[in-house]
Amino acid sequence: MTIETITIIGMGLIGSSLARRIKESGLASKVIAADYDRDVCDKVVELGIADEVTDKLELSVEEANMVIMAVPVGVMGKVAQRVIPYMKDGAILSDTGSVKAAVAEDIKSFCRSGIHFVPAHPIAGTEFSGPESGFSTLFEGRWCILTPLPDVSVKAVEDVTRLWEGCGSMVEIMDIKHHDLVLGITSHLPHLIAYTIVGTANELEEDIKSEVIKYSASGFRDFTRIASSDPTMWRDVFLNNKEAVLEILQRFNEDLTAMQRAIRKGDGEYLYRRFGETRAIRKAIIDIRQE
Amino acid sequence: MTIETITIIGMGLIGSSLARRIKESGLASKVIAADYDRDVCDKVVELGIADEVTDKLELSVEEANMVIMAVPVGVMGKVAQRVIPYMKDGAILSDTGSVKAAVAEDIKSFCRSGIHFVPAHPIAGTEFSGPESGFSTLFEGRWCILTPLPDVSVKAVEDVTRLWEGCGSMVEIMDIKHHDLVLGITSHLPHLIAYTIVGTANELEEDIKSEVIKYSASGFRDFTRIASSDPTMWRDVFLNNKEAVLEILQRFNEDLTAMQRAIRKGDGEYLYRRFGETRAIRKAIIDIRQE
Repeated sequence: MTIETITIIGMGLIGSSLARRIKESGLASKVIAADYDRDVCDKVVELGIADEVTDKLELSVEEANMVIMAVPVGVMGKVAQRVIPYMKDGAILSDTGSVKAAVAEDIKSFCRSGIHFVPAHPIAGTEFSGPESGFSTLFEGRWCILTPLPDVSVKAVEDVTRLWEGCGSMVEIMDIKHHDLVLGITSHLPHLIAYTIVGTANELEEDIKSEVIKYSASGFRDFTRIASSDPTMWRDVFLNNKEAVLEILQRFNEDLTAMQRAIRKGDGEYLYRRFGETRAIRKAIIDIRQE
Repeated sequence: MTIETITIIGMGLIGSSLARRIKESGLASKVIAADYDRDVCDKVVELGIADEVTDKLELSVEEANMVIMAVPVGVMGKVAQRVIPYMKDGAILSDTGSVKAAVAEDIKSFCRSGIHFVPAHPIAGTEFSGPESGFSTLFEGRWCILTPLPDVSVKAVEDVTRLWEGCGSMVEIMDIKHHDLVLGITSHLPHLIAYTIVGTANELEEDIKSEVIKYSASGFRDFTRIASSDPTMWRDVFLNNKEAVLEILQRFNEDLTAMQRAIRKGDGEYLYRRFGETRAIRKAIIDIRQE
């Protein structure tokens, strides 16, 4: 299948990687890139990764058979509201957001019959942002989770599946609430923790802070990489996946308090047992070759 | 300078990497490897990374000009107590522990005049353990922090400095209490957090747990790597650097509570500001080429 015309809204890391891949692999005959930011549009023109580039979102979708919104979760609803009235009947609307339930709720309220909405989440990324950070193999070998609502057309889900498979991804269908809980654990909480710990270090007295930077060992250095991800994207994730994140954060807090108590009481047996248990998960992850 | 005879006690990741490097670079004429575990000794013989291998710690130090203890922090004192009576007058005793103050206190109580004790901490490692995991370039380009006590001979500090420089490390002298605070932030707290978050995931209901493993995204995957480090080593770190870890953990907890409150209240402005602040530290770390 080749899509006739695809429009990608939002030319950040994800959108620009998608555009590159679609162009390279010929997954669509025509790629239209849209971004409200003119500087970003200029950059995309310069990079030559789309057939047309525009900062007029409404115009960008008029001839599209498929529209992918790759914008921060917090503006996904607004972008959908703006472009849906201009989309062709029968066109597919999809997205790349890391949070699905709240966003789908929002978009559904603007949707109309004739538009097939298929939420998608490619689990891929780096700590870098902007169109110049994208690359066409970003999705290669990574999961892409679709969370279609019950009433959507099977054909539309198939089309979105084929797009992501064409990008090298492995596609899975998941219940939308379940997605937000699983990702809350594997991605959202780790980012929150990393931002917090690097923030704690950032507020240390200047002399200690400079030494923390100088001697940053593997643990802390990994956290700073995670904590240099795009602030807008992550703010929106936490505002839109509040429930799942707060639930898992509470469990984490209980476990951390138990660790703290064991350290205070000098309970080496507890610490040794807890530290040993976590190796099994690591092994399982290595075994399924996600590392 | 070539050391005549060096004894390394403990043939784990650090000890075996050190033995490999010393042999390769000819930093000592003779390398004696000691480990109380006979299986480990057999492995070291097989690997051929030392001139002599023994499980008799006392015998291993008798002809040594320098003795390096590369054992978990929790048994450092006991090992020192056992070997010091057998060491030659004028010999240097050093270690590779990640915690310095509590251990030095312990060792000092067993020391005698004629033995020069120079605590050292090579900031290097991987998540793997055992003699087969070591490699000779482990210390290349990494810091090694010496925390000599006030009354030690300058010559002994120079000798230990040259050893680590010979291993490719950059050596710095630091106050011993200060070392434990800085490392508490850059290494000990991140490991505790990683162990905790992977432990939290480990206790999830089975169906969610298997999906967490399957879809483990970059954040969580990094944490599982950190949390697969040696449990004995890390138990001992927390038991021996209690004060610094608990202090920094309290600051972290306060910051995490503030993040939690912001998510609950939907305070996007706060989250955005905090997420933006941490990029500066990342940049500073990249600028000094530790990444």
